[in-house]
Amino acid sequence: MRKVCISGVGITKFGELWSRSYRELIVEAGLRALEDAELPGESIECLYMASMGPGMWVSQEHAGPMIAEQTGLTSIPVVRVESGCASGALALHQAFIDVASGKHDIVVVGGVEKMTDVGAKEAGSIINTMLDYEWESIFGATLPALYAMMARKHMHDYGTTREQMAEVAVKNHYNGSLNPIAHFGRKISVDQVLSSPLLADPLRMLDCAPMSDGSAALVLTSKGDVEIIACEMASSTLALHSREDITTMDCVVGSSKKAYKRAGINPSDVDIAELHDYCTIGEIIESEDLGFFEKGKGGKKVAEGVTSLNGSLPINTSGGLKSRGHPIGATGVAQVAEIYDQLIGRAGERQIELLDYGLCCGVGGSGGSAVVSIFRRR
Amino acid sequence: MRKVCISGVGITKFGELWSRSYRELIVEAGLRALEDAELPGESIECLYMASMGPGMWVSQEHAGPMIAEQTGLTSIPVVRVESGCASGALALHQAFIDVASGKHDIVVVGGVEKMTDVGAKEAGSIINTMLDYEWESIFGATLPALYAMMARKHMHDYGTTREQMAEVAVKNHYNGSLNPIAHFGRKISVDQVLSSPLLADPLRMLDCAPMSDGSAALVLTSKGDVEIIACEMASSTLALHSREDITTMDCVVGSSKKAYKRAGINPSDVDIAELHDYCTIGEIIESEDLGFFEKGKGGKKVAEGVTSLNGSLPINTSGGLKSRGHPIGATGVAQVAEIYDQLIGRAGERQIELLDYGLCCGVGGSGGSAVVSIFRRR
Repeated sequence: MRKVCISGVGITKFGELWSRSYRELIVEAGLRALEDAELPGESIECLYMASMGPGMWVSQEHAGPMIAEQTGLTSIPVVRVESGCASGALALHQAFIDVASGKHDIVVVGGVEKMTDVGAKEAGSIINTMLDYEWESIFGATLPALYAMMARKHMHDYGTTREQMAEVAVKNHYNGSLNPIAHFGRKISVDQVLSSPLLADPLRMLDCAPMSDGSAALVLTSKGDVEIIACEMASSTLALHSREDITTMDCVVGSSKKAYKRAGINPSDVDIAELHDYCTIGEIIESEDLGFFEKGKGGKKVAEGVTSLNGSLPINTSGGLKSRGHPIGATGVAQVAEIYDQLIGRAGERQIELLDYGLCCGVGGSGGSAVVSIFRRR
Repeated sequence: MRKVCISGVGITKFGELWSRSYRELIVEAGLRALEDAELPGESIECLYMASMGPGMWVSQEHAGPMIAEQTGLTSIPVVRVESGCASGALALHQAFIDVASGKHDIVVVGGVEKMTDVGAKEAGSIINTMLDYEWESIFGATLPALYAMMARKHMHDYGTTREQMAEVAVKNHYNGSLNPIAHFGRKISVDQVLSSPLLADPLRMLDCAPMSDGSAALVLTSKGDVEIIACEMASSTLALHSREDITTMDCVVGSSKKAYKRAGINPSDVDIAELHDYCTIGEIIESEDLGFFEKGKGGKKVAEGVTSLNGSLPINTSGGLKSRGHPIGATGVAQVAEIYDQLIGRAGERQIELLDYGLCCGVGGSGGSAVVSIFRRR
């Protein structure tokens, strides 16, 4: 299998974009990525796209050919993939295999979601479809409720504190305040997190990612500025009750082990990472499952500033899902766009110096699926 | 890229399976495929699955990890793809690239849909999500209505008759009467088609595929009884009004041209084919766009018996979508299962003799996307 590189990225504003349509967003991101890669549209041979549930959000399944039509790429294959919140990361995974195999030379990966066209109640039931319907959502479980159970157990087993979780949100909002496309470009404090409305005890509103509209896109080629040296996927059980330990996501452990092996590096070699902070406890658990920190120490490391912009391992410099926003299908692609910008040195006020390796971790739902990718500046 | 073969297939009964759940169906098909391939579950390295809109049909997106869990394959990657009615064919397309690339050696392709848990009105609106929402379905267009326009234009331009379209349904029901898993295992007559309720003039109820529950699965390896010598995808515009000619599906023309080139064969080399007869006119248009017959002659060939079981190019020996049934995500996989059974000589009363090459054509919606695959007995 041959090398796969990123040669350009594009991203739209994330937020409540009531005046923008689903198709406008993905077209904007795609065109920006092409401009960035300095490639004409005609050079694109295949499009991979991620969207979690466009039929439910905007009454539009079979969006692949629509996007090809809107971008003038009609005739090329368009492959839509879905794996809950990891959909964008999965699109990268499939595009990676495609280019690595030699099937296509120039491929675009796009992710998009338009979540604010439905009301809050309907949005909740759409997000619930990512849980196990027959064992979880039918009984009233919600995604924050499952993360709340994971948080409670993590607090019990490892002494993780409410304040440490809040520090994740504070850090990510700080980073997001430096990111022009972020959904929430403002800083928040630990006190604000702890006094925000309770969603699912112990998680509060400011522990959880918002519902956002937005899109991101990447151009993959066999040559480019940044090489994807590994992209691996694994699954856990979908239902939380089937897991041996709910403070660990087996899919993150499994996919990252495969990715490190393929990349030939260790967790300690990673210089910067974008993790899936759908809830603050998620970032903490992933930072442990990825091998960055010993199990149970993730919260402590955040509070110590290790994962801050000026720490030794900055995590979610983009603002993460919490502050940059979480248009579901776009998220996994936006994570990669941030790592790309960081590795080539154009991340503006968020720029981290002396980077060799970047990592992205996309997680589906409460940890049913994960995709871990590792990147290196060429 | 290395060879990709099919070493086993599995399929459930298709029909209104009110006592069977979504997860039961896909597990049954998957286990049957593994038994057929004589492989233990532990050998499976990756699962590709197709489902059109499970969040809308059964409140279950992110179904990949659920299926992995139910089949005891937790930890492997599970990739869900969607391209409207071509979803199953797209799953094969992605699995083909995967095995061809050397990424995985043993991969399962599964397709499933559970469509009868919702009422008729809701089902209609779910199927409508495969149309262009902003340009078609919002104005009241339905999928049969779009096919009706294609049929009317085909009749106008080429003299295709109402009776010729009915002959497609009659042929496919005859074939389905010989297929134990078919949704409708009964023969029908041209008169019955022509006197069935009008759906969208000139198409009647017996011109259109039913809503079915069911699942099908394949095991792909680099060795096996049947080789996949080509698997190619292309797209057309999603919206019908954007096409230069609505009697042709550019995606079928484009994907089949690529497939013939890759396989090194001509349309006349194909001995048997499974086409996407969502409406009877669909099978006629595809049989022309695939190069089997001159443009405009497809209807005449059906009426002459050329595509019947004892004709020179049998089409839809399984009964097709019309009679075997159309659980959307399963359809593209079920087509391949039929060609596999035919090529290895175990298609029972439907068996065709002296087969070299088989072809499957999956079409999304009204022809927005298509995947064409070509198979050869090894």
